[in-house]
Amino acid sequence: MLVSGIEDTILDGRTKGVPGTAPPFRLGDIAAKGWNVMEEDMPLPLLLLKRSNLDYNAEVFGDYLTAHNLSLAPHGKTTMAPQIFDEQLHNGAWGITAATVQQALVMHHYGVKRILLGNQLIGKSAVASVSAMLHRDEELEFYCFVDSPAQLALIERHLQAAPPSRPIRVLLEVGIPGGRTGVRTRDQASALAEAISQADPALIRFAGVAAFEGVVPGIADSADPVAEYAQSVVDIASTLPGKLLGGLDEFILTGGGSAHFDMIARAFATLSLPVPVRIVLRSGCYVTNDSGAYFAAQEAARKDPARDWTSTLKPALEVWAYVQSRPEPGLALLTMGKRDAPYDAGLPVPFARFVPGKGTAPLGETQIFAMNDQHAFVRLPKDSDWQVGDMIGSGISHPCTAFDKWRFIPVVSDDYDVTGGILTEF
Amino acid sequence: MLVSGIEDTILDGRTKGVPGTAPPFRLGDIAAKGWNVMEEDMPLPLLLLKRSNLDYNAEVFGDYLTAHNLSLAPHGKTTMAPQIFDEQLHNGAWGITAATVQQALVMHHYGVKRILLGNQLIGKSAVASVSAMLHRDEELEFYCFVDSPAQLALIERHLQAAPPSRPIRVLLEVGIPGGRTGVRTRDQASALAEAISQADPALIRFAGVAAFEGVVPGIADSADPVAEYAQSVVDIASTLPGKLLGGLDEFILTGGGSAHFDMIARAFATLSLPVPVRIVLRSGCYVTNDSGAYFAAQEAARKDPARDWTSTLKPALEVWAYVQSRPEPGLALLTMGKRDAPYDAGLPVPFARFVPGKGTAPLGETQIFAMNDQHAFVRLPKDSDWQVGDMIGSGISHPCTAFDKWRFIPVVSDDYDVTGGILTEF
Repeated sequence: MLVSGIEDTILDGRTKGVPGTAPPFRLGDIAAKGWNVMEEDMPLPLLLLKRSNLDYNAEVFGDYLTAHNLSLAPHGKTTMAPQIFDEQLHNGAWGITAATVQQALVMHHYGVKRILLGNQLIGKSAVASVSAMLHRDEELEFYCFVDSPAQLALIERHLQAAPPSRPIRVLLEVGIPGGRTGVRTRDQASALAEAISQADPALIRFAGVAAFEGVVPGIADSADPVAEYAQSVVDIASTLPGKLLGGLDEFILTGGGSAHFDMIARAFATLSLPVPVRIVLRSGCYVTNDSGAYFAAQEAARKDPARDWTSTLKPALEVWAYVQSRPEPGLALLTMGKRDAPYDAGLPVPFARFVPGKGTAPLGETQIFAMNDQHAFVRLPKDSDWQVGDMIGSGISHPCTAFDKWRFIPVVSDDYDVTGGILTEF
Repeated sequence: MLVSGIEDTILDGRTKGVPGTAPPFRLGDIAAKGWNVMEEDMPLPLLLLKRSNLDYNAEVFGDYLTAHNLSLAPHGKTTMAPQIFDEQLHNGAWGITAATVQQALVMHHYGVKRILLGNQLIGKSAVASVSAMLHRDEELEFYCFVDSPAQLALIERHLQAAPPSRPIRVLLEVGIPGGRTGVRTRDQASALAEAISQADPALIRFAGVAAFEGVVPGIADSADPVAEYAQSVVDIASTLPGKLLGGLDEFILTGGGSAHFDMIARAFATLSLPVPVRIVLRSGCYVTNDSGAYFAAQEAARKDPARDWTSTLKPALEVWAYVQSRPEPGLALLTMGKRDAPYDAGLPVPFARFVPGKGTAPLGETQIFAMNDQHAFVRLPKDSDWQVGDMIGSGISHPCTAFDKWRFIPVVSDDYDVTGGILTEF
């Protein structure tokens, strides 16, 4: 990986989260600055990463993968942070998943050698980019999803115009009625399998079956639909025509977001084929977890004796902001908004108050009930002693829409010393 | 302005919206590439700016300002695109508005000399950054909002630790009960005015009154609350203690987003003081308008004979994506999601279909009814002939949350030739 180049990036106060008074400096030198968030050395709002929780999550999730003989191609779209990809690969990740070809180009630039486009490859420009990447790098393995003969034909046509040095590996995506992408029926799967088997083998090569359980209808109420869906994926994978498996070293069977991955893993483990099966999870949010939707999903899994997840990942992302106004009893405004924190799967939840120069103070009963572009509205008890200038730390819900709001995210110790920093490339 | 430096930025396929096969190139050389969006030269999804509509909006809004003797400090947080700030200043903008000190630092870096922080200045680091900016640049004029003696005291304390070369100009913000920031009553305004008059004149100088009508309770149903609020702002401004006005060359009275600016302008024009009054609008979204919330707000104004807005701004932002899957009758998936288009004030609305290699095709009845991080779900008639690979153009709602999802946005002609490109710095 080439992430050492990232450490040479020069930052200044134009980048959100960097102190405006700092002379331009190398990212890699940030620890030497002696900055501490609670000393008000950093401007707020600030999204930050807790180093200890990142490490904890990596270890706990790694142990789970090892115990269940699973490979991981973590979804890189969550963080789009090459330094985090680097850590994930060092921790044994089999590859990195991308949602778009631009994301794949970023990953490849920083040295990722196995990229799984967890999405339909489509469009002249995107296909030509993949072909060019394969030409540039003999070590690169590139996988993508296909879910229709029409899409497959488009890829093939565009590849004929820009032939790759070796074939693109395609994963037949199995969906579910009422869901997102992916074939709905065994008949559709058979038709697509037939089309793949007839594609030019110099351009396109079958590699396995893909699924995503995170958008299955009904999962908000019960995990049962995930089990049914996972079984349907295994059923389709087990009945693919034998000619598709010919010449395969291994069959990739991939699924798994960050909420029901254990159910996917259990069902997928039952697939038996004449070639070895590699089960690849694509969980992206495990790396930071959160304090909202993924925390809740994990608790639901942990408390269900029928599930295989027994651990507790820790929230590694926090967002801090000042109380900028107390214009009415029971109301506070914070210096953060839709530009700074996710709002698509629940608003941030305050968990700590720090009074500069004094120390931690009781939070009281609070709720962020609305966010504008750059403001958060907090409901408080009428007699709350929150003061203008207090610092409020909040947990977030949905890591994917937290990372994409920050180009630079400081990494801190448990005492909020800034010990490093990561850059994102969305 | 130093935007010429932006033209020297080297881009490649790592930046979303840039073709992955392009060798690294100067942004300023993009027009020479001969790229056309409909020829599939650009990867999708793609947010783009229509040059003709940008120019049209600048002219129409400029005419309105001139006719009503208004100054403009457009809210730069909308675009955070220094090249657009440059155009706005060339078109006569009095200054540029920022929502945060980081945004102000970006603006100042590119040569903006009059910056209005349309928000509470707060925090040790932010105050020190402003002080340092004033030290670095004798030409810089910096304004910010204050809405409580507590905030004022914090600014003063932090300025004492990092004294500026000349005072920060503060605008007393007037809010409304149930609203966002800003004093709620005449008594609160008087108390804050008294505090401002007692602040160290070497550090803090009174400059006028600020308001924002876009968050007034009840405006979703009627424009009447805006008129009442605007009048209350004028009432407070007209009864401020005379000692605050002493030594002022002019009194700044600022308000106005992009939906009810005409009502603000009309009410503010009635303020009479012993010093000249400069009315500064802060509209940010006029520059691109949209196809959703701001389009609707403009139509409401245009159709109301009691309003002073009679023109029609045009949507300058479009987002294009491929149909990547047609997995069920009546459903299509597009290659764009919450990473690419706004979803906080309405989802994108398809307006055009283009079949690569063939041309425009009928759109039919469509609706984007959901978006995931990287996908959009479209409801179609059961017999729709949308095909995988078709290109769908959509209008967006809320420019602020469109720009912040793209680092690079191509500028196109009406024929979708790429004639330029802007960079954002969020």
